[in-house]
Amino acid sequence: MINIQSLKTRRQKLANLINIPIVLWSGKSPSKNFRANHYPFRASSHFLYFAGLPIENAAIRLENGNLDLFMDNPHPDSTLWHGEMPTREDIALQIGADNAYPMEVLKDKIDGVATVPVQDTFTYQKQREILHRFLSINEEVKEIDHQLMKAIIALRLTHDEMALTEIKKAIDVSVEAHKIGIKSTKNSATEAEVRAAMEGYIISQNMTCAYNSIVTVNGEILHNETYNNELKSGDLLLADVGAETVLGWASDITRTWPVNGHFSSCQRDIYDIVLAAHDVCIEKIKPGIEYREIHLLGAKIIAEGLVNLGILKGNPETLLEKDAHAIFFPHGIGHLLGLDVHDMEDLGDLAGYKEGRTRSDRFGLGYLRLDRPLKSGMVVTIEPGFYQVPAILNNPKFQEKYYDDVNWETLKQFSDVRGIRIEDDILVTATGTEILTTNLPNKAEEIEEMMKRSR
Amino acid sequence: MINIQSLKTRRQKLANLINIPIVLWSGKSPSKNFRANHYPFRASSHFLYFAGLPIENAAIRLENGNLDLFMDNPHPDSTLWHGEMPTREDIALQIGADNAYPMEVLKDKIDGVATVPVQDTFTYQKQREILHRFLSINEEVKEIDHQLMKAIIALRLTHDEMALTEIKKAIDVSVEAHKIGIKSTKNSATEAEVRAAMEGYIISQNMTCAYNSIVTVNGEILHNETYNNELKSGDLLLADVGAETVLGWASDITRTWPVNGHFSSCQRDIYDIVLAAHDVCIEKIKPGIEYREIHLLGAKIIAEGLVNLGILKGNPETLLEKDAHAIFFPHGIGHLLGLDVHDMEDLGDLAGYKEGRTRSDRFGLGYLRLDRPLKSGMVVTIEPGFYQVPAILNNPKFQEKYYDDVNWETLKQFSDVRGIRIEDDILVTATGTEILTTNLPNKAEEIEEMMKRSR
Repeated sequence: MINIQSLKTRRQKLANLINIPIVLWSGKSPSKNFRANHYPFRASSHFLYFAGLPIENAAIRLENGNLDLFMDNPHPDSTLWHGEMPTREDIALQIGADNAYPMEVLKDKIDGVATVPVQDTFTYQKQREILHRFLSINEEVKEIDHQLMKAIIALRLTHDEMALTEIKKAIDVSVEAHKIGIKSTKNSATEAEVRAAMEGYIISQNMTCAYNSIVTVNGEILHNETYNNELKSGDLLLADVGAETVLGWASDITRTWPVNGHFSSCQRDIYDIVLAAHDVCIEKIKPGIEYREIHLLGAKIIAEGLVNLGILKGNPETLLEKDAHAIFFPHGIGHLLGLDVHDMEDLGDLAGYKEGRTRSDRFGLGYLRLDRPLKSGMVVTIEPGFYQVPAILNNPKFQEKYYDDVNWETLKQFSDVRGIRIEDDILVTATGTEILTTNLPNKAEEIEEMMKRSR
Repeated sequence: MINIQSLKTRRQKLANLINIPIVLWSGKSPSKNFRANHYPFRASSHFLYFAGLPIENAAIRLENGNLDLFMDNPHPDSTLWHGEMPTREDIALQIGADNAYPMEVLKDKIDGVATVPVQDTFTYQKQREILHRFLSINEEVKEIDHQLMKAIIALRLTHDEMALTEIKKAIDVSVEAHKIGIKSTKNSATEAEVRAAMEGYIISQNMTCAYNSIVTVNGEILHNETYNNELKSGDLLLADVGAETVLGWASDITRTWPVNGHFSSCQRDIYDIVLAAHDVCIEKIKPGIEYREIHLLGAKIIAEGLVNLGILKGNPETLLEKDAHAIFFPHGIGHLLGLDVHDMEDLGDLAGYKEGRTRSDRFGLGYLRLDRPLKSGMVVTIEPGFYQVPAILNNPKFQEKYYDDVNWETLKQFSDVRGIRIEDDILVTATGTEILTTNLPNKAEEIEEMMKRSR
């Protein structure tokens, strides 16, 4: 599972980048109803990257490649409720800590340390209290914290072998979950039943969901987290579901398939456009290429496809320039993947955007989460889509702006295509790409074949 | 789903108990990795009780039976990501609010209001900021907050029809989940696979888990939340799994069954003792009886049973007085059930313990979560158990204290009985009890029969 040498290498690489002592907190599971009924614990990703294990209520201090662990031993009474828990010394050994101290010692070792604010508000308060200062990822952030964030980003942008092994483990489980989802659809009456089949498999493999699953016949609702619709013949079902390993590494996969096992001719036409965009984008990935170019390439393929279908009118390049494609493909082509499904998004755009770049105010670019030249060792998603979002199509502002670019009558024929997305996880390699999600079919006929066999 | 008249009745009853304006916050889903990757939202139970719907980032002000809703309308951009969201006016109508305001109005309406601190730290800070005071459930709490807590407890201790309908819905799904768990065991290799079958069913019914499931062959670890053990013939599998409805009402069920479908003779002997305690306790439940008496009755049945098996030595009454039963049954016989699985445990023991009573320091009573006379309309769990907890059995303090009470040699013969618990949910009625979890077998031979049929 964890390789101490790899962890030590990460710590040493950080020391090579930043010559300041660093303290990272793991966080604490938030209460749900009451303290004993809490959400499952999820350690801070920055902590996980250097500590390796999800240890609750812990902190690590990194300096010169050394790691000091701060955590309290389990309370003796807790063995009754939780069984024998590993002690501080056990954990220190497992993660290759150089020293290990009770938590109360930490306050004596925080002079001049840099940190990153954790997500859980309780621990965030503790961080502020012990460091006596404000913590933020914003511009007003303390200079050393900003330095630390940039150093961590430099490391986490590309993945080492231990990380890739974990990501691939997560992906393998997600791939199987998607196969199960596709095959289970024939015998499912609701979105919830397909979700259950997919998440059930993830749970059975002792993993968790890397994010709240999307399993919906309303794929046009991009972040739909309800599952109460019935499945009806003629619907497309969009499933964006990904597993996370015990050590916290994520996967992120989307497939869209027809509830009745057959794409209608309109659904198939649009599906093939989305898939073409997907394939062309992946083909183009290599070290050095700007991810924004990949996004614009995907957008162009979609625009071309929609022109060919008669949904958009005019020259694809011109349509692209005025963001007409974004009426139907309003989000970015993908994002970084790692310990977080949108890796390091807790740092805002610091990780996703190359220094000096900021979000575009263009409708077709503003939602792009990654705007950097790609590097060997990065893992990114490629996830083009087509959606008929009422909030866009019924918006007078868009209707007016794109009145002549859309063939609104033709569009009506495609009313059974509310949302399609195809998403795979891609490793940038020295020579090009490795598709990590390769065992999961994405061609329309393969999906239909898989559904047929499951009858 | 929700019945506005029932909600209005709850609000009026609260007004009859307390003549102070009240503000209750719903809370906010905590961040997991980053703000967009959050835990599923779970509204504060006190808010849910009077508002009826889990509305995120909302507050209600209650006075004289009237309810004012405070929430902001969804941001126009959010329709792109989340589809059409109900507006403040939609929600106000659904929950029968008398007035509805944007959140910023709340600060003008907080003079002299009482409140209850919410669980999520972010909203808790907001509460403190807007009220300009410290919030706590402890003795140093503000007097009006304490009055409010007592009034809410007086209401929530017993359940109205709307509540019971929801609890029964949750129970029905949990019952089916347990049946599926029992039947799936034959084809499962790990705890995780049985957990997946059970939680998968809950997910398929569009419900959530009311608490982190326990599905373990190490039933002696009372709050075991890991699922990585393989199932081995001869093991008992303990599953404590309960569903929660969309409106937040909980269920709580435990069954213990043999992995290979047959209780060994030792397992059966102990199982029958636990079941006898379970049955006798439920039989005894009626309005007016002290729950502590039920607990002690259960403990006595267990002590008697263990004496009959030769595991304990001596007079059961005497053993009970010196808490010798608690070596094997260290927790309480059960707790309140409602919107929370341990209902109102966010208020510490204010709800569980009758005014003026506090936790016993007796080993066999200190973990009792409920010490009140029962009333018609309460829902409680009855969950006796038998465990061989290493932290107890290997503790020299206990070994010495109970040296002569335990037949340590005989105990060794029962090494395949590490943990057994049988838990059902019971409604106290005017005439006695209604077992709400009645459709789920709990007799050893019924469980064996169910497993045989599932082969």
